[in-house]
Amino acid sequence: MTHDSTSNLPGAACPLPLAHTDRIVMGHGSGGKMSHDLIARLFIPAFDNPILRAGDDAGVFAASKGTARYALTTDCHVVTPLFFPGGDIGRLAVCGTVNDLAVMGATPRYLTAGFILEEGLETAVLEQVVRSMQAAAAEAGIQIVAGDTKVVQKGSADGLFITTSGLGTIPEGIHISGNNARPGDVVILSGPVGDHGIAVLAARGEIEMETDVQSDVAPLNRLVAALLAAAAPEIHVLRDPTRGGLATTLNEIARQSQVCIHLNEASIPVRPAVAAVCEMLGFDPLYVANEGKLVAIVAPGQAEAVLSAMHQAPYGAEAVIIGEITAAPNGRVLMKTAIGGTRIVDMLAGEMLPRIC
Amino acid sequence: MTHDSTSNLPGAACPLPLAHTDRIVMGHGSGGKMSHDLIARLFIPAFDNPILRAGDDAGVFAASKGTARYALTTDCHVVTPLFFPGGDIGRLAVCGTVNDLAVMGATPRYLTAGFILEEGLETAVLEQVVRSMQAAAAEAGIQIVAGDTKVVQKGSADGLFITTSGLGTIPEGIHISGNNARPGDVVILSGPVGDHGIAVLAARGEIEMETDVQSDVAPLNRLVAALLAAAAPEIHVLRDPTRGGLATTLNEIARQSQVCIHLNEASIPVRPAVAAVCEMLGFDPLYVANEGKLVAIVAPGQAEAVLSAMHQAPYGAEAVIIGEITAAPNGRVLMKTAIGGTRIVDMLAGEMLPRIC
Repeated sequence: MTHDSTSNLPGAACPLPLAHTDRIVMGHGSGGKMSHDLIARLFIPAFDNPILRAGDDAGVFAASKGTARYALTTDCHVVTPLFFPGGDIGRLAVCGTVNDLAVMGATPRYLTAGFILEEGLETAVLEQVVRSMQAAAAEAGIQIVAGDTKVVQKGSADGLFITTSGLGTIPEGIHISGNNARPGDVVILSGPVGDHGIAVLAARGEIEMETDVQSDVAPLNRLVAALLAAAAPEIHVLRDPTRGGLATTLNEIARQSQVCIHLNEASIPVRPAVAAVCEMLGFDPLYVANEGKLVAIVAPGQAEAVLSAMHQAPYGAEAVIIGEITAAPNGRVLMKTAIGGTRIVDMLAGEMLPRIC
Repeated sequence: MTHDSTSNLPGAACPLPLAHTDRIVMGHGSGGKMSHDLIARLFIPAFDNPILRAGDDAGVFAASKGTARYALTTDCHVVTPLFFPGGDIGRLAVCGTVNDLAVMGATPRYLTAGFILEEGLETAVLEQVVRSMQAAAAEAGIQIVAGDTKVVQKGSADGLFITTSGLGTIPEGIHISGNNARPGDVVILSGPVGDHGIAVLAARGEIEMETDVQSDVAPLNRLVAALLAAAAPEIHVLRDPTRGGLATTLNEIARQSQVCIHLNEASIPVRPAVAAVCEMLGFDPLYVANEGKLVAIVAPGQAEAVLSAMHQAPYGAEAVIIGEITAAPNGRVLMKTAIGGTRIVDMLAGEMLPRIC
């Protein structure tokens, strides 16, 4: 994602401001408050430019005035273990970058892949990961056009890290951004939350119960294309709720657009197996990572058309309406709970599940 | 760089074919024969497409038929230590990617940066690296438009790795590639070789003699722009001799273009301090990494014009002619030695200096 410029709101202060920490901690990679703090206090002031400051999932620019627009994005992948039910680091690396382009309304075109390998890594493991990347790239219709490989001594990296970058083209008339949510808009979610995070956790053997949860890791560009074909001008925001989960993603949008997002807890789908693990471990599934889910915020008149298009598109069969946008309280996510109350849903604080993507 | 497709020539067989190794070793990251073997046997067959197969320092494509051409490239940076005389990992990460674009004749436009941080890294170190990246980006005139940060547990990465990707635009009429060297062409080198590798080695405390060698790490895009302004259609190949050194880069070009490169040893500049360290450690400076040097292969009629343009451009003051292109023996680099003989200069075998970039 581009480095989000959103500064913390009053009442939502970062638990550990960067200015007061002299060491990097796991929470700086959580995708939640501490990640945003690092971005807002370090990266944005240093690299400042209007493209980065937009704070979306990819940098968007026209090569020259009046010409086609492009989206460019990058993601590092450090998931452990390298293979998990439903996917592996290779599929994750391709899909993560494809999805960051797709949610800008861009057609993913070209991908680069940088490999940092630990000395001693089994060649067969690398081969399997590379084959998985190619399969995901073929599914998404993206070409891998450049790469780099570095090897570090045993003990200096954890097996295999992959950084992918992607370039996409944005069709004329498409203007999707986290800034575009408007009061009255409807919030649609493409399916149940938390599958990826729980699948990876289970693959680490950190759960003392049997579970068959599979990661949802998938390329969402064809799902996005179906939405755009159905209702392009009325689709205001698209975002994939990865690290930090649905709650963090919606907080980002609420802050970027300066609106309030009202959720209906009863409408948010969670698979029973995911809910069971979350209950046992004390996790809230709203903060658990997804790698194949889409949030779409659309004009109310087009909500049914979008939902219907999603139901017929790949990875959209379980799409549901989960909430709506209001004007106030500005920058907040509120949720009507299953028992009838309303609570504030904040951004992820600290680090819940490290090395999840 | 794009994954070089050049297979090994008869008589230059890889010392450790990938098919016969079941583990990744340091040599797979050397930039030499084992890196090429990994690329030719694993990455190219898996990701195969015409852009990747070109084997240049960046993937080159037109977004649609008849429109402007773009170059896209990626590089991982794992140098240790993070700071060394003349530079640091941040300057290296920006310049490495800027230079891979520049040697395709592309104007560097947009950069992405992916950070993998080790838990416990001092925040002040990250801040210093980020400031250095911004200074290098400003010098090169490139914007950093997207980024990502992941944190891994203490012991799971070595301080800080940075993967940069870059997008550049290629002006009309510019067609530079490692495939374009022709018999009769002149080989120009922008300055002395080996500075970067020796500076990093010295910074590690691995040299038992005092040395004041500084890394040459620098953005070469303004030097390239000066060359193109002087003699664009007659500049056939540009390449920056990084990992694997000048010898490996010239072997890549000889194979890609199916020509022979004849060097004159007496013409290849090496600073006395670099030569002294190399002699002590038994290194050949032709295989030591550079991060701010340019090889230009140009039509003979334009050699003097190019040399003169380089002398007046940033980082080109010490440019010299070091050799010429002949038709045979095809795919080889030969060198007339200082004592009058001729020897074969092969690609780097194994790993000489790990973690140099």
